[in-house]
Amino acid sequence: MLSIVVEHIFLLVIVTLISVLQNAFFATKVEREGKEHNNKTAFERVSCANRNCMDSYPTFLAVMWCAGLCLNQAPAAFAGIIYLVARQKYFVGYMGQTCQSTPGFLFGKRVLAFLILMCIVGIFNFLLVRYLGNDYKDTMETITNAASALLLIP
Amino acid sequence: MLSIVVEHIFLLVIVTLISVLQNAFFATKVEREGKEHNNKTAFERVSCANRNCMDSYPTFLAVMWCAGLCLNQAPAAFAGIIYLVARQKYFVGYMGQTCQSTPGFLFGKRVLAFLILMCIVGIFNFLLVRYLGNDYKDTMETITNAASALLLIP
Amino acid sequence: MLSIVVEHIFLLVIVTLISVLQNAFFATKVEREGKEHNNKTAFERVSCANRNCMDSYPTFLAVMWCAGLCLNQAPAAFAGIIYLVARQKYFVGYMGQTCQSTPGFLFGKRVLAFLILMCIVGIFNFLLVRYLGNDYKDTMETITNAASALLLIP
Repeated sequence: MLSIVVEHIFLLVIVTLISVLQNAFFATKVEREGKEHNNKTAFERVSCANRNCMDSYPTFLAVMWCAGLCLNQAPAAFAGIIYLVARQKYFVGYMGQTCQSTPGFLFGKRVLAFLILMCIVGIFNFLLVRYLGNDYKDTMETITNAASALLLIP
Repeated sequence: MLSIVVEHIFLLVIVTLISVLQNAFFATKVEREGKEHNNKTAFERVSCANRNCMDSYPTFLAVMWCAGLCLNQAPAAFAGIIYLVARQKYFVGYMGQTCQSTPGFLFGKRVLAFLILMCIVGIFNFLLVRYLGNDYKDTMETITNAASALLLIP
Repeated sequence: MLSIVVEHIFLLVIVTLISVLQNAFFATKVEREGKEHNNKTAFERVSCANRNCMDSYPTFLAVMWCAGLCLNQAPAAFAGIIYLVARQKYFVGYMGQTCQSTPGFLFGKRVLAFLILMCIVGIFNFLLVRYLGNDYKDTMETITNAASALLLIP
């Protein structure tokens, strides 16, 4: 039974693993910056960037897993990867010596909105199937697969 | 197979989505307050409220999903909704110009305790079924459904 | 159907519950320390320890659940317990009056690395089964069960 489950979530697990490795990378950055006591502002900046990333991490995980379970794992994992790339850019941009170009608490808003939309579509589709007997799931999956490609447009 | 899964978790997914939207609302509040540089204390207060909410967010999610998976999703989702209402009240009360009336790191303790109790009952019931062969699950679900109504009493 | 699911995750749920209780313990410690206004440094220290623990909490939960779902719940739950013990030691050591002996943002690195390895092995094994038809899952589970005992060596 579990192998059936793994078949439906293994892409999500891979994205989760990548995000965990990214978290570890962020944490080691903060740790290394904290040991060099010469510049205080750099540590402040890295620590702040790390905290912003960590604050939105559970939200991201919850939305990605819900979207993957409700509808289809492939576009959810794809959106997750794009979110991780956006987070990496945010963190590196924050760390840089230049003035921070990306303020704000919410980065990757578009990706999160897309994932939330996927959840809503999935639940709506499930309710339709249950109470009306129509199955638009295949159609929905095709549409979301196509729509996830739109996320690449900056 | 997945549609069977969705049938057992769709209420939890809906509550998770609502909590994510609430997180986004909190984050935009903090962001807007941070842009107005005129009053520093207001920003401090909103930021602190947001951090307290975010600190207990993974705990809440984990407990709600465990309770929903182990026993029944309906009372778990109901308790989740009540927790979100408590969190909203806490955040708005913290933000207000009056002195903060709700200190403490843990709000919604009662809801979390109820969800933890649900988990324990679910696991205990599962172990009873496995090793003794009795199934009290239906009884338990009825009791928890009734008990979740008690949460409404302030 | 759900009872089948519960059979495969109940150890993970128990570890999650213990971690939630530990979180509540940390939060009450911080709250109590915050009420005694006489020593500011003690509150700072406890609050900082609590924040470090909370920052890595979603990462830990995600990795533990992925490892438990992908491969086997028993070693994942065992590693989770060891992580919780390490966290308890870290928090108490941070709280003590002596100089902090455990700096760093990442504690329990070894446990997390072990869990990540479990995930990778599980996914790799699943892909092998799917595309080659070999099933090394039993072998893998035996190896990870044996390897999880190695975590006890300090």
